[in-house]
Amino acid sequence: MAAGEIFLWELIGTAMLILLGNGVVANNVLRKNNGNNAGFLFVNFGWAFAVFTGASIAAPTGAHLNPAVTLGLAIADPEKVPWSQVPIYMLAQMVGAIVGATLCWAAYKLQFDDHPEPENTLGIFSTAPQIPHKVWNLVTEIIGTFVLVAWILFAANYKMGPDGVPTFGNAALGYAGVAFVVLVIGTSLGGPTGYAINPARDLGPRIAYAFILPIRGKANPNWGYSWVPVVGPLAGGALAALLYLAMPVAA
Amino acid sequence: MAAGEIFLWELIGTAMLILLGNGVVANNVLRKNNGNNAGFLFVNFGWAFAVFTGASIAAPTGAHLNPAVTLGLAIADPEKVPWSQVPIYMLAQMVGAIVGATLCWAAYKLQFDDHPEPENTLGIFSTAPQIPHKVWNLVTEIIGTFVLVAWILFAANYKMGPDGVPTFGNAALGYAGVAFVVLVIGTSLGGPTGYAINPARDLGPRIAYAFILPIRGKANPNWGYSWVPVVGPLAGGALAALLYLAMPVAA
Amino acid sequence: MAAGEIFLWELIGTAMLILLGNGVVANNVLRKNNGNNAGFLFVNFGWAFAVFTGASIAAPTGAHLNPAVTLGLAIADPEKVPWSQVPIYMLAQMVGAIVGATLCWAAYKLQFDDHPEPENTLGIFSTAPQIPHKVWNLVTEIIGTFVLVAWILFAANYKMGPDGVPTFGNAALGYAGVAFVVLVIGTSLGGPTGYAINPARDLGPRIAYAFILPIRGKANPNWGYSWVPVVGPLAGGALAALLYLAMPVAA
Amino acid sequence: MAAGEIFLWELIGTAMLILLGNGVVANNVLRKNNGNNAGFLFVNFGWAFAVFTGASIAAPTGAHLNPAVTLGLAIADPEKVPWSQVPIYMLAQMVGAIVGATLCWAAYKLQFDDHPEPENTLGIFSTAPQIPHKVWNLVTEIIGTFVLVAWILFAANYKMGPDGVPTFGNAALGYAGVAFVVLVIGTSLGGPTGYAINPARDLGPRIAYAFILPIRGKANPNWGYSWVPVVGPLAGGALAALLYLAMPVAA
Repeated sequence: MAAGEIFLWELIGTAMLILLGNGVVANNVLRKNNGNNAGFLFVNFGWAFAVFTGASIAAPTGAHLNPAVTLGLAIADPEKVPWSQVPIYMLAQMVGAIVGATLCWAAYKLQFDDHPEPENTLGIFSTAPQIPHKVWNLVTEIIGTFVLVAWILFAANYKMGPDGVPTFGNAALGYAGVAFVVLVIGTSLGGPTGYAINPARDLGPRIAYAFILPIRGKANPNWGYSWVPVVGPLAGGALAALLYLAMPVAA
Repeated sequence: MAAGEIFLWELIGTAMLILLGNGVVANNVLRKNNGNNAGFLFVNFGWAFAVFTGASIAAPTGAHLNPAVTLGLAIADPEKVPWSQVPIYMLAQMVGAIVGATLCWAAYKLQFDDHPEPENTLGIFSTAPQIPHKVWNLVTEIIGTFVLVAWILFAANYKMGPDGVPTFGNAALGYAGVAFVVLVIGTSLGGPTGYAINPARDLGPRIAYAFILPIRGKANPNWGYSWVPVVGPLAGGALAALLYLAMPVAA
Repeated sequence: MAAGEIFLWELIGTAMLILLGNGVVANNVLRKNNGNNAGFLFVNFGWAFAVFTGASIAAPTGAHLNPAVTLGLAIADPEKVPWSQVPIYMLAQMVGAIVGATLCWAAYKLQFDDHPEPENTLGIFSTAPQIPHKVWNLVTEIIGTFVLVAWILFAANYKMGPDGVPTFGNAALGYAGVAFVVLVIGTSLGGPTGYAINPARDLGPRIAYAFILPIRGKANPNWGYSWVPVVGPLAGGALAALLYLAMPVAA
Repeated sequence: MAAGEIFLWELIGTAMLILLGNGVVANNVLRKNNGNNAGFLFVNFGWAFAVFTGASIAAPTGAHLNPAVTLGLAIADPEKVPWSQVPIYMLAQMVGAIVGATLCWAAYKLQFDDHPEPENTLGIFSTAPQIPHKVWNLVTEIIGTFVLVAWILFAANYKMGPDGVPTFGNAALGYAGVAFVVLVIGTSLGGPTGYAINPARDLGPRIAYAFILPIRGKANPNWGYSWVPVVGPLAGGALAALLYLAMPVAA
């Protein structure tokens, strides 16, 4: 597929993902909203089906929407995702994330203006640890992303069931499957660090917050933590790919 | 398909949608109900599977149930949805919405009679902004409907996956796919304006409320705001169709 | 299919449905439970996937599990569900419901013994109106069951999508489809009367409560209301079948 | 399939299941988490899609992930699951559960250190009854596991619908089907004993807690109760298999 097409689809898909993912947090956090204080399960459902929506739109290029997924797929199967395309995917994901965060801001513009603690709005766009500790925060992000990329490699691409029927993978559930996995990563591993599990999901909106969005009274974008939700997910995706290569996968 | 058949299926499907969608809000808002104060995720699930139910029943005509969807499809693919049929779809949707709102009133008749603040029941039928501001409320409705119609155009009709398998779209999930998208639009973009994202969903029940339903002590139907959830969704649907026409969609 | 096989599958499927459906209410209502006070969305999910579980087990006979469904299918298509089989289905559903309620009691036996208000446990087994009024309670049950049976007739059996692909119905979602419909009937129409929408689901457990289960301090089984969740669902199912026969369904 | 392959896939799948299942409880229970006090429906969704994730990864070997499932399948169909493989499955499940519990501890390491009541963390790893009573706790676990294994035997493997279409089972929903069943077992039968319904899910993490994990101030692993969530599930799985063998299943 042409580089331009990959760029376009990944940009649109990631923009949808971030618009809807940042949106559910804005709805939960900002006070004059129907979803104010609706809780973490509400947030988990929002992110899960944000992935569903963005991924099913970006299907023509494989719907990575996440540099950790792109890296894992390139390590696991460079014939399917050539290394030469990796920078195109990742750049598109970053640009898409910035576009998505900007659209989220537009949808919630009045709520941002109304918010009594404008210095606390970074958390709508990017993750932060509940208990800051670089090493263990990294561990949590590595484990979460490992689950995501391992599932994509082992299950989403898997074709033959034990009885010769294509029983699951994309053919059975479409992109609902990956939404279910993102749902459970949120409920089960999203407690300590907010489950970035995607460098573009975290860094793109952080850049938008810092340099683009005209949010009244916005505060420090917390650059000191910003590398953790980039490095952790990339490491987790790479580890999942190495496990995949080590396993006797049924062809 | 004959105009009469389109009219019938769209009417029945939209009536189901509005009966169930207005119903979940009635259950949440009116006090003597099992679902009283069950929260916004509860409301989001109700609307999402209201769409599933109405759309899967109205499948023979393509299950638009929404003038913004009809407009988007007509712009994107006038061979599939000819402009001559557009008024039939839209009229059926409006009539169906009025029928659905009336059925919702019947199902909750005793609860309406019991409600201590009868002047506050408009919100069961039609949307209202948390912070009134015509321009930014319009922006929120445009963005929400853009997501819905873009997903329908890009994903629900998409057939071939990157490996030549029809991996998603209607063939994979049926109308569950659109329910998932409506779920996430609710969680993620439903905070500021209540996600009308459908002119018939908002205007039809508002008409029923104003002119038909014998609700004790009912108040002003808020005509001043009523054009926003009509114009916003139509604009969002049209924008999605323009993006669709501009993209190199795999045929 | 032989009468004995219909009887067995319907009995097992309905027992599963009622075990799990009564169970979620017991979990929510009785105090020493992990799910105590988990709320109405929790109850709605329980009943929805109780239907999924029971129906997918009882698939060999069509998985009615509900006299209103059996009646609607017999009216709509007596070749598929002959009138001679109707009493077999209904009897099996009643017996299965009693078995399921008994299993639910066994699973929650310690919680029933511990409950400080034993006279208030009827609601675990059978429905009651929030505001008693025979006529309007009946209307609510008729509307809820109409939605269920209309969906089964129009959507679950539907085969051809507008583009010639079998896009939904059982072939697309299995029994998840009917679970989604039961979920939304609960969220959207379950407020006033607790959505019996199934005579066996209500009367069977009521009989078990009144005559079989050794619940300490149990009270009046409310026979005065008991006919409403029997007659209402049967009427709603019959009305859905009449609409089905009147519509130009694509064959 | 070679014993080593079975061992690997079952180990990885069960590790995923327990990582995510223990994780959702940790998120709910430990205070410095985004999901703190998110409730029992949140926990139910976590466990349900933990099963989805682990099972869809372990599909090459049939994805038992549970000694009660292995026992039930071996009784029901020893050609498919030979008795000689049963110890391999069960050992892999136990080792996988210990690995998963250890990964969960690592993901929540900071939260364990912060927890003010470190003696109360056993419940993150293993189940405990709300009201201790060996016999009735056993009954509850038997009933819950009976539902799980009966569904797997009757529905997941079922191929032909009443109209000759393969309408459900793995082919229709992939491993989402079993996730839905685990969801409802949680909501509906998880109140009294916390729905172990899997000996490896309960005993493996209990062993990890007692002998491996360096949790500050950890208390008694409650060995006195530990046999109930082992024996109950095995008995429930065996009973489901006996029912399966007694039924006239369509071949």
